[in-house]
Amino acid sequence: MDTVSLTGKELAAAINADTGARAAALAANGPAPRLALVVATDDPASAWYVNSLRKAAERLGIACDRIDLGAEASAETIRAELAARSADPAVDAIMLQTPLPDGVTLDDVSSSIAADKDVDGVSPLSLGLLAAGRTGFVPATSEAVVELLKHHRIPLVGKHVAVVGRSNVVGKPLAQLLLAENATVTVAHSRTADLAAVTSVADVVVAAAGRIGLVTGAHVGEGAVVVDVGTNEDADGKIVGDVEADSVRGRASGLSPVPGGVGPVTTALLMRHVVVAAERARAV
Amino acid sequence: MDTVSLTGKELAAAINADTGARAAALAANGPAPRLALVVATDDPASAWYVNSLRKAAERLGIACDRIDLGAEASAETIRAELAARSADPAVDAIMLQTPLPDGVTLDDVSSSIAADKDVDGVSPLSLGLLAAGRTGFVPATSEAVVELLKHHRIPLVGKHVAVVGRSNVVGKPLAQLLLAENATVTVAHSRTADLAAVTSVADVVVAAAGRIGLVTGAHVGEGAVVVDVGTNEDADGKIVGDVEADSVRGRASGLSPVPGGVGPVTTALLMRHVVVAAERARAV
Repeated sequence: MDTVSLTGKELAAAINADTGARAAALAANGPAPRLALVVATDDPASAWYVNSLRKAAERLGIACDRIDLGAEASAETIRAELAARSADPAVDAIMLQTPLPDGVTLDDVSSSIAADKDVDGVSPLSLGLLAAGRTGFVPATSEAVVELLKHHRIPLVGKHVAVVGRSNVVGKPLAQLLLAENATVTVAHSRTADLAAVTSVADVVVAAAGRIGLVTGAHVGEGAVVVDVGTNEDADGKIVGDVEADSVRGRASGLSPVPGGVGPVTTALLMRHVVVAAERARAV
Repeated sequence: MDTVSLTGKELAAAINADTGARAAALAANGPAPRLALVVATDDPASAWYVNSLRKAAERLGIACDRIDLGAEASAETIRAELAARSADPAVDAIMLQTPLPDGVTLDDVSSSIAADKDVDGVSPLSLGLLAAGRTGFVPATSEAVVELLKHHRIPLVGKHVAVVGRSNVVGKPLAQLLLAENATVTVAHSRTADLAAVTSVADVVVAAAGRIGLVTGAHVGEGAVVVDVGTNEDADGKIVGDVEADSVRGRASGLSPVPGGVGPVTTALLMRHVVVAAERARAV
């Protein structure tokens, strides 16, 4: 079977064209939309990602402040910074980069991000609005998976989607979004007894566990669609996904590449959220 | 195969014994714990349920105010009432009865319930705290399903649980709770293409769709456990579940009865939440 590459580049470009125009319209009538990127890690992969976000913002006419709290920052320090940026009318959007310092969890600090600036949808209120089907910002990676599938015209209504991974930032919010698309959704994870049995009956498999080579050809039914959300660093320092592409190719009808699949769409959606937050703030 | 009846009466009695003692301890040092039941419907099944909650509260030494806004109440009226009770220090806990008036949805009004009084866990913040694995009140029916399974020593770790129904009050929060128990979770619903294919491979099937006879023997694998969350009124005015018990019995290894299964545990957990809310408020 031919396996179509479900690239995210064209979709990201289309989203970015719209975002750039909206950012320019805002900047014509006031300050440019402004994103505060709060960083409390010296992880190199994270630094690379933060840098790519800053470049994306710059290209789109979005101002981006990087606030570096250091890898030793306490939960109190991070909360205080997030609260200050939440209260600052010059800041339209806030994103807290992970990983966080040892002993600090996202749950410890995320509620200090005001919901109307929480463009990556990490705060409990944002997650609750999502669970209730209400209007908040959706975690960008989850939204990117759904948008990528729609862009490639993969049907979801009544289809069975298996999500591998149950993180608060990807797996769980993605399950909510897929239910809202009328898919039947299975969430599997590290404690799932027989992963292949669960995933091989699904029409769509989403790998979002953060483990290299977790999803192989044996996990995928003939003709299924596979979306790879993983961004792992391999032994050579190369970014690779959760899917063993070689064994899946020829078996799946579609597979999203890493890099170039979910990643660029995620960045594009984050930047769109920044512009939306700014539009809402200025309209008040 | 013998099908064990997974009754909830013993578990409810054990929870109630603890709740009654804690309510008495609170009342010995101040006012009794106080629940405000806000009602905006003239639905007879709802009236029956509200009455049973009032009786349960009375038996446990919990004060219970029924606030009747009428079946024509607007969203504004309901929101204002919920906000007033949220601000009233004499009220420890608030529960909004459904159904709501035509044109008013739970999502329209639930955010007016303060999270620390939201004992049925319906507000977006409560749902988000649940999604993030944090401490808020969990919707009582979902919690009752998990507690009933644990009480009857049904293993959940690594097991595949199929939840039929994706409501914000049962299906979705139940999926979160089951994931937290390390189960693999599938959420199926009215748009699921082949329900029996999805449910018949599960170790546990939870029927929570609100449709009489939706889950039959054909939907249940040999030896699986079936939990019936449905409380539907049949043509004779009798309360019946979502499970066709006759065809499931002999095939499942366990089945929760309706009435007498999830129902009494739900009421008991709601009352426990009221006492917990009061304990937290008094400790401040």
